[in-house]
Amino acid sequence: MRAGRVGLGVDIGGTFTKIVAATREGIVLDRARVPTRPSLGPRRFVGRLAEALRRFERSLSLRAEAVGVGAAGDVDPARGIIRFSPNMRSFDRYPLRDALAAALRRRVSLHNDADMAAWGGYAVELGRSKENLAAFTMGTGIGGGLVLGGRLFLGSTGSAGEFGHMRIARGGESCRCGARGCLEAYAGRYAVVRAARRLLRESPRRNSLLRNLADRPGFDASRVAEAAGHGDPMALEVWRSVGRAMASGIANVVLAFNPDVVLVAGGVARAAALFLPETRRLLRRESFTTPVRHVRVLAAKTEDLGAVGAAVYPLEEALRP
Amino acid sequence: MRAGRVGLGVDIGGTFTKIVAATREGIVLDRARVPTRPSLGPRRFVGRLAEALRRFERSLSLRAEAVGVGAAGDVDPARGIIRFSPNMRSFDRYPLRDALAAALRRRVSLHNDADMAAWGGYAVELGRSKENLAAFTMGTGIGGGLVLGGRLFLGSTGSAGEFGHMRIARGGESCRCGARGCLEAYAGRYAVVRAARRLLRESPRRNSLLRNLADRPGFDASRVAEAAGHGDPMALEVWRSVGRAMASGIANVVLAFNPDVVLVAGGVARAAALFLPETRRLLRRESFTTPVRHVRVLAAKTEDLGAVGAAVYPLEEALRP
Repeated sequence: MRAGRVGLGVDIGGTFTKIVAATREGIVLDRARVPTRPSLGPRRFVGRLAEALRRFERSLSLRAEAVGVGAAGDVDPARGIIRFSPNMRSFDRYPLRDALAAALRRRVSLHNDADMAAWGGYAVELGRSKENLAAFTMGTGIGGGLVLGGRLFLGSTGSAGEFGHMRIARGGESCRCGARGCLEAYAGRYAVVRAARRLLRESPRRNSLLRNLADRPGFDASRVAEAAGHGDPMALEVWRSVGRAMASGIANVVLAFNPDVVLVAGGVARAAALFLPETRRLLRRESFTTPVRHVRVLAAKTEDLGAVGAAVYPLEEALRP
Repeated sequence: MRAGRVGLGVDIGGTFTKIVAATREGIVLDRARVPTRPSLGPRRFVGRLAEALRRFERSLSLRAEAVGVGAAGDVDPARGIIRFSPNMRSFDRYPLRDALAAALRRRVSLHNDADMAAWGGYAVELGRSKENLAAFTMGTGIGGGLVLGGRLFLGSTGSAGEFGHMRIARGGESCRCGARGCLEAYAGRYAVVRAARRLLRESPRRNSLLRNLADRPGFDASRVAEAAGHGDPMALEVWRSVGRAMASGIANVVLAFNPDVVLVAGGVARAAALFLPETRRLLRRESFTTPVRHVRVLAAKTEDLGAVGAAVYPLEEALRP
């Protein structure tokens, strides 16, 4: 059995659950994944996940000190439950943390996935060199997390960091949450697709690589990124609009928190080279120069940052029993 | 000389500087004020302020342990300077804190005025009963401050809490800061006047108390509040629009920080009874129920909350030398 402090990180999504083993410094020893299958219910999920984690440990010849779990949705870290997760309704209010801890006979922590990505950004990407960080996780939706004064900031009910639903436009684009004008409705994965389709519709005679791609099954944000990578002007325009929305969202967070770093992570952030230049250009024009000049806006480099953050978070000295 | 722990609080505004003496519990012993006269420069201001504080102490037969100063603008609390204040440009980068400390031979702290109002809200209004509070100070502009985990949160450069310039509307109303769509451009004092004048212009035949008031000198938000107090429908409409804007601003802050309490303070917040019901109504319709149901949105009751907060803040145990 390998010595040293290793954590297992689990990132539960609606389709797949990712697993990583990482050292306290964030060096990833290995990765695995299991299908989540929320329709089978949380008890069977916990059984399969525990089995997968044990198998994973055996293959690495280690026994992790702690297990950190991040999950999409409204998580109550104090009680170790998911209050509400739109893509895993069967998990709602199930004692996920304690069930997994009992199955593994190990300490388990349960947090929102974006909070774990923020911790990964702070502890691994930045090596704890900056005190205040805000992370935007850009996937289908947009989540967020905060590290303030070198500590994960959860808010009063564990719900802090819902940056995706900050209102940036009055009566603007409709959001999956039911409201209008949320950041997510301009910069989430579905918003990228919507913006591309709208642009195609509005300029029926304009030539674009997107025109062929949009009719094929599986058309999504990564196809729009590919087209932009080939220099397609319409696709580039879509990403600039994402950059504009992110400038508003990031400006709001910078004005509110005055962080050292804003990190964009998640699938959509792989296209950061296509939208962050526009974001940075607009931020430079902000009137409140002190916090805006101070902040660095960066794209995450770590694959599966949420799972890596979840692996290292429970290894914190302050959290040891 | 009276025993017990008393602080002097100073709130520097562009026109007047308010002074209070308060106990650690926030009981105000007395108030005074001096004209700021920024055109005469910061050195003469410090001389006059020190003299006024000494006179104030003599009249109360006390010697305060510490002096807390709040100032409008971009304050660097670590260095004790105002980096930039639009209404007191002559003070920019002057070593205000250290000059006052030398004149008084006392510890002096210098912070943003809204940060001190937030501390006053936390320590005095709520009696430290809640850990996480966000304050919106509604005057000519809108400022903000944060108490997180029972501590004043200043951000990386002391600039946290600029809620007035969070973007709530794309390409919306123009703001004094040069940008468009800031919260302040919908709910600051000048925005109330602008909204009233626009409504009058747009409905030239509609009867309203505002019509006479708007032509008189000194027409401002408090006149619009008076008219609304008399049940004038157009004035009530203006305040509902303020309530709508505050709902967006407060929703953004609640989604980002998940606080226990949001406090509205400052001159415009005296009209809270006219706009907060609309704010609360809209917040109840938000999709993210956990943080929105948890938060209480309150109007401050303390007169000069910024000065009172400034008086009690340097009495904190944690700040004692």
